[in-house]
Amino acid sequence: MNTFGRIFRVSLFGESHGPAVGVVIDGVEPGLELSPEDFMSDLLRRKSGAPGTTPRIEEDVPEILSGVYEGHTTGAPLTIVFRNGNTRPGDYERLRDVPRPGHADLVAGIKSGGCNDPRGGGHFSGRLTLPLVAAGVIAKKVLAETVSLETDGHVAFSDKARILELGGVSRKDAVKRVRQERPDAELWAPEIQTAAAEGDSLGAVVECVVDGLPAALGEPFWDSAESLLSHAVFAIPGVRGIEFGDGFASSRMKGSAHNDCFEATGHGIVAPSTNHAGGINGGLTNGNPVVFRVAFKPTSSIRKPQRTYDLSGGEMTDLVVPGRHDTCFALRTPVVVEAVAAIVFADLIDIA
Amino acid sequence: MNTFGRIFRVSLFGESHGPAVGVVIDGVEPGLELSPEDFMSDLLRRKSGAPGTTPRIEEDVPEILSGVYEGHTTGAPLTIVFRNGNTRPGDYERLRDVPRPGHADLVAGIKSGGCNDPRGGGHFSGRLTLPLVAAGVIAKKVLAETVSLETDGHVAFSDKARILELGGVSRKDAVKRVRQERPDAELWAPEIQTAAAEGDSLGAVVECVVDGLPAALGEPFWDSAESLLSHAVFAIPGVRGIEFGDGFASSRMKGSAHNDCFEATGHGIVAPSTNHAGGINGGLTNGNPVVFRVAFKPTSSIRKPQRTYDLSGGEMTDLVVPGRHDTCFALRTPVVVEAVAAIVFADLIDIA
Amino acid sequence: MNTFGRIFRVSLFGESHGPAVGVVIDGVEPGLELSPEDFMSDLLRRKSGAPGTTPRIEEDVPEILSGVYEGHTTGAPLTIVFRNGNTRPGDYERLRDVPRPGHADLVAGIKSGGCNDPRGGGHFSGRLTLPLVAAGVIAKKVLAETVSLETDGHVAFSDKARILELGGVSRKDAVKRVRQERPDAELWAPEIQTAAAEGDSLGAVVECVVDGLPAALGEPFWDSAESLLSHAVFAIPGVRGIEFGDGFASSRMKGSAHNDCFEATGHGIVAPSTNHAGGINGGLTNGNPVVFRVAFKPTSSIRKPQRTYDLSGGEMTDLVVPGRHDTCFALRTPVVVEAVAAIVFADLIDIA
Amino acid sequence: MNTFGRIFRVSLFGESHGPAVGVVIDGVEPGLELSPEDFMSDLLRRKSGAPGTTPRIEEDVPEILSGVYEGHTTGAPLTIVFRNGNTRPGDYERLRDVPRPGHADLVAGIKSGGCNDPRGGGHFSGRLTLPLVAAGVIAKKVLAETVSLETDGHVAFSDKARILELGGVSRKDAVKRVRQERPDAELWAPEIQTAAAEGDSLGAVVECVVDGLPAALGEPFWDSAESLLSHAVFAIPGVRGIEFGDGFASSRMKGSAHNDCFEATGHGIVAPSTNHAGGINGGLTNGNPVVFRVAFKPTSSIRKPQRTYDLSGGEMTDLVVPGRHDTCFALRTPVVVEAVAAIVFADLIDIA
Repeated sequence: MNTFGRIFRVSLFGESHGPAVGVVIDGVEPGLELSPEDFMSDLLRRKSGAPGTTPRIEEDVPEILSGVYEGHTTGAPLTIVFRNGNTRPGDYERLRDVPRPGHADLVAGIKSGGCNDPRGGGHFSGRLTLPLVAAGVIAKKVLAETVSLETDGHVAFSDKARILELGGVSRKDAVKRVRQERPDAELWAPEIQTAAAEGDSLGAVVECVVDGLPAALGEPFWDSAESLLSHAVFAIPGVRGIEFGDGFASSRMKGSAHNDCFEATGHGIVAPSTNHAGGINGGLTNGNPVVFRVAFKPTSSIRKPQRTYDLSGGEMTDLVVPGRHDTCFALRTPVVVEAVAAIVFADLIDIA
Repeated sequence: MNTFGRIFRVSLFGESHGPAVGVVIDGVEPGLELSPEDFMSDLLRRKSGAPGTTPRIEEDVPEILSGVYEGHTTGAPLTIVFRNGNTRPGDYERLRDVPRPGHADLVAGIKSGGCNDPRGGGHFSGRLTLPLVAAGVIAKKVLAETVSLETDGHVAFSDKARILELGGVSRKDAVKRVRQERPDAELWAPEIQTAAAEGDSLGAVVECVVDGLPAALGEPFWDSAESLLSHAVFAIPGVRGIEFGDGFASSRMKGSAHNDCFEATGHGIVAPSTNHAGGINGGLTNGNPVVFRVAFKPTSSIRKPQRTYDLSGGEMTDLVVPGRHDTCFALRTPVVVEAVAAIVFADLIDIA
Repeated sequence: MNTFGRIFRVSLFGESHGPAVGVVIDGVEPGLELSPEDFMSDLLRRKSGAPGTTPRIEEDVPEILSGVYEGHTTGAPLTIVFRNGNTRPGDYERLRDVPRPGHADLVAGIKSGGCNDPRGGGHFSGRLTLPLVAAGVIAKKVLAETVSLETDGHVAFSDKARILELGGVSRKDAVKRVRQERPDAELWAPEIQTAAAEGDSLGAVVECVVDGLPAALGEPFWDSAESLLSHAVFAIPGVRGIEFGDGFASSRMKGSAHNDCFEATGHGIVAPSTNHAGGINGGLTNGNPVVFRVAFKPTSSIRKPQRTYDLSGGEMTDLVVPGRHDTCFALRTPVVVEAVAAIVFADLIDIA
Repeated sequence: MNTFGRIFRVSLFGESHGPAVGVVIDGVEPGLELSPEDFMSDLLRRKSGAPGTTPRIEEDVPEILSGVYEGHTTGAPLTIVFRNGNTRPGDYERLRDVPRPGHADLVAGIKSGGCNDPRGGGHFSGRLTLPLVAAGVIAKKVLAETVSLETDGHVAFSDKARILELGGVSRKDAVKRVRQERPDAELWAPEIQTAAAEGDSLGAVVECVVDGLPAALGEPFWDSAESLLSHAVFAIPGVRGIEFGDGFASSRMKGSAHNDCFEATGHGIVAPSTNHAGGINGGLTNGNPVVFRVAFKPTSSIRKPQRTYDLSGGEMTDLVVPGRHDTCFALRTPVVVEAVAAIVFADLIDIA
């Protein structure tokens, strides 16, 4: 299914080396100011070029095909397209027959009866996160506007994700060794350089904190806030786990330690005083920041030779994955995680 | 939203202390043999009574209201109802004013403008997992029949979950100390007894392994197999995290160690030889068992006094949660986790 | 699919001669007063007993299984069940082998591989309109409350349907011959008696007028107000056509005669001064009453012998349809048409 | 909502005078041959140029942005875009203040808080039927392939619509006067010329016949075949009514005349011998051709002056609708009606 959401609905399309990737968003509220410049900051965060990310540079210029008139959203479906320019399909010629370990190549072939686009993973490529980030920009706009209306803006909406751990080294330790906060990729430069030199790759954990949401967002039984967030997060290629609040650690805690007790706030709302639950009770936001962590696996494409099966030759073979790849693609994902969180809450706030 | 699924669609309703809880399942294939006895084994696994679980005993007798004729499913919506008999609503009188820490009481009140059913959490109660398990029984039947048709039964479908860790003690260690496998609750009897004596509660990790699925189930971009499984899993009350295959540990691995290489199988299928990915690549099942772990928090209702806010009195107060509760409700959840996994794959196999 | 709607979502289940028919409604706003008595007036309008309707009398007592607490809706799924009491399944023994002309018997058998419930049409029975009318009662409550909030109540919401033509005789002519308005069934008593005496049946046209709706309800492209209304109307068994405003006659008009020109109203809204469009422009309500007509076929079950095929015997045969049936079931449908219109607008007003 | 369908899902976007109109189709089966040429025949039927249709000529060249690889569908979302070239937005400058009678201008403005694109109706324009026809081409391919597999091709799939009546003159009478079948527009040349000379417009009735479908397509309760067809048909701008089989006439028939009796066919299937029901019983296809008629209103845009309200001036005014328009836009709709019918059945056959 290419669509997610009930009111604020995001449909993605495109292939890594096809003509374009894009997104159609239904249910955007009319009257939001929107120009191509609004996308630049988030698209830049996702863009390649930093240490540990792929040297494939795309222009990544959003073209708005529908839903905007005289600089404002109209409420009609909003379509954004990104042309694929810098493609090197020749890199992928061998991949239909020799599936890359860790990739969707083999199963995509089974699913499509051999008709999938094998170039760079086709529709399964991480490049689909480009229009996803664009959708996130719209969602953040919706939330910034709606939340301030609903809550009188006593807490401004914000949605921030960053790398919490990379290659097994925590942010805290990474900061400690350079004695200051720095951009994500720089904090773990030693790990990235070593892995790159080995032709290997690294994974990471991203933490996202969403603040300023009204309480009681979520639609149990099935559409708990965690259900929708995890649904959207696992659509991002390369995710292996998600946890909210204390997460897996909570399974080792006692109830008396894990429960968030209530207390009054200055605004007269009775809010939990701690945040072990990650801002969600019974599937509904509780007024605390929503906090969750996402585990990304190491990049599947590596230069190290890997054993795989040659479907045409019918025998095992060694594969050195061709193409240009991130040593740690997770470095580019914090803005993607923010995007899906914003998409989920833009929908929930429309339903509420 | 009370419905989950596109073809095999499960709608839940009911409250903990209302007249009944139940489920309507749409899209059940016609011709499946079904009798009330078919539910007994799974309902028993969920039922209370074992050490660490609540002494509230319900009859939990399923009544089939629609969709079955002469002992077979008809393809029309299948409705199953469980009457609530053993209710003690008086236990919950104070809870509208004094929200229980860790529960949905406060946010449910905000969401409903004070109109929610406060007795035992109302619609937010774990009792909703009763009709959920019933739906899982139907889903397992669908899968057992469909999978054998699709795969010639060379691997029989199975869907097994069990406690992997409880109160911080791994199953491996728990088995070691009693020198044999035993039912879940007995393996961790010491931890449970201690917590119960303290009026406190425990959490646990459940692992689920789904075997015998055909390859290529999943509907990217949004409906990856992990997306749907996590969506359904986080609908279960008390879940804090989910991870697939190596999960969070994968974020600390290198690509060369995490990637599952391919090799041929006796059936001519090229399957991954290891299972770090937990049986899913690019959001699609890959023929290996699907493996995931679910973190359950400790039971929120504890006898230990907790600070909370008295909304009527307008001041902080101590609360001893009334009612009868599990020391570790997670002991009852393996069959619930199986149920949601079966529901997800019954839907995906219908779509495929 | 047993569910209709995006926010106000109505799921129906049950069979004519099974244990029960019922409805689960998701997305009901919390805080609506609701008691079993609220259903009586509409259920009575649908009930049998008047001339031209079947002598099968059911108690038709709604049991509220979930979603209501202390006489008010909670916002959780609302379930209503009607037990089937007065069943005579023996009437239907022959029908699996000898499909009734005009009924779903044959195709339902094909669809279910012979596993459908053949008693009285099973899930295809008009009895499903019983819980549908109950859902309509809830929808009307939602609309009455919401519309008055949104429009300051300058036009009260109302949703009225009645027979416009029966057996080819218009309401106008039927009223003329008795010189006064009377209940539907009495106006066409001569036609009904004649057809009943012949063992034959009659059809009718129902007109529905929905007033007091705010402007701009509808969700193009696909979910125009007409699209949703017709979708819901054609779910009612026995419908053959629907038209809005001037309907089929508009195809014979010129644009200058059909267009509704605009003029200001006392409330400052620029509303169409005529209503050829039936209250809808471009798929959106325009502030005028929504007007549509529904064509119901004659009752399919008749006492006159009909040629059909005996599947067991493998030969043509004469069938006298057993059981008790309406001479003109359409007499019972005005309240059903109202119900589906209310359901559609309750959903659209929630989305808007 | 811009999306229709459960498995074969069609999302439309674009505005009449924006950069483009387009469609994303999800759930297309992989392996279908597809090239831009495949669209030409149907696009030509929809194209303007014939007598009675607008002189605005667009190139209408489909660009396939995703979902096709080496000339075959991949199963990934299929995106088709049509650039808008020949726009004259100046024609529409006055329309935000002076809503055109019969159009969505006023209600679209209300819905969007004044942010809608007013040029040519924006998203409400009939130009959206261009990508709709493109989606129909894909749907017809799916059906042609799937139906022949399911039914052994004993009846080939076909989906044909044509004008049945225009300006009140039936096709039969129109043919009689020229003594031969001719293209639609030529048959009613006298009516069209007269209306055009008057600066007025005409409506028409389109009949669609879908043959070769397997029996038992449809998903009651809510998704009867008629429900889905009418839902999709009323999304086409300008539709005022739909009827199946005998339609409104059936409400004047007796049951003994309306019921379709069964008889055996050469293929051993027991099919109705007549087709009063229009090929559908109980919401399911019955093996007979599906037959329905659609009433189109006269074109709303006319050169004759019409009274309307000038929102800026606050007074009534005369409006001569600017721009280029069809005298009878319905002439271009038979292929659109075919498209939506194909879309509905492509989805139903995927679900079945």
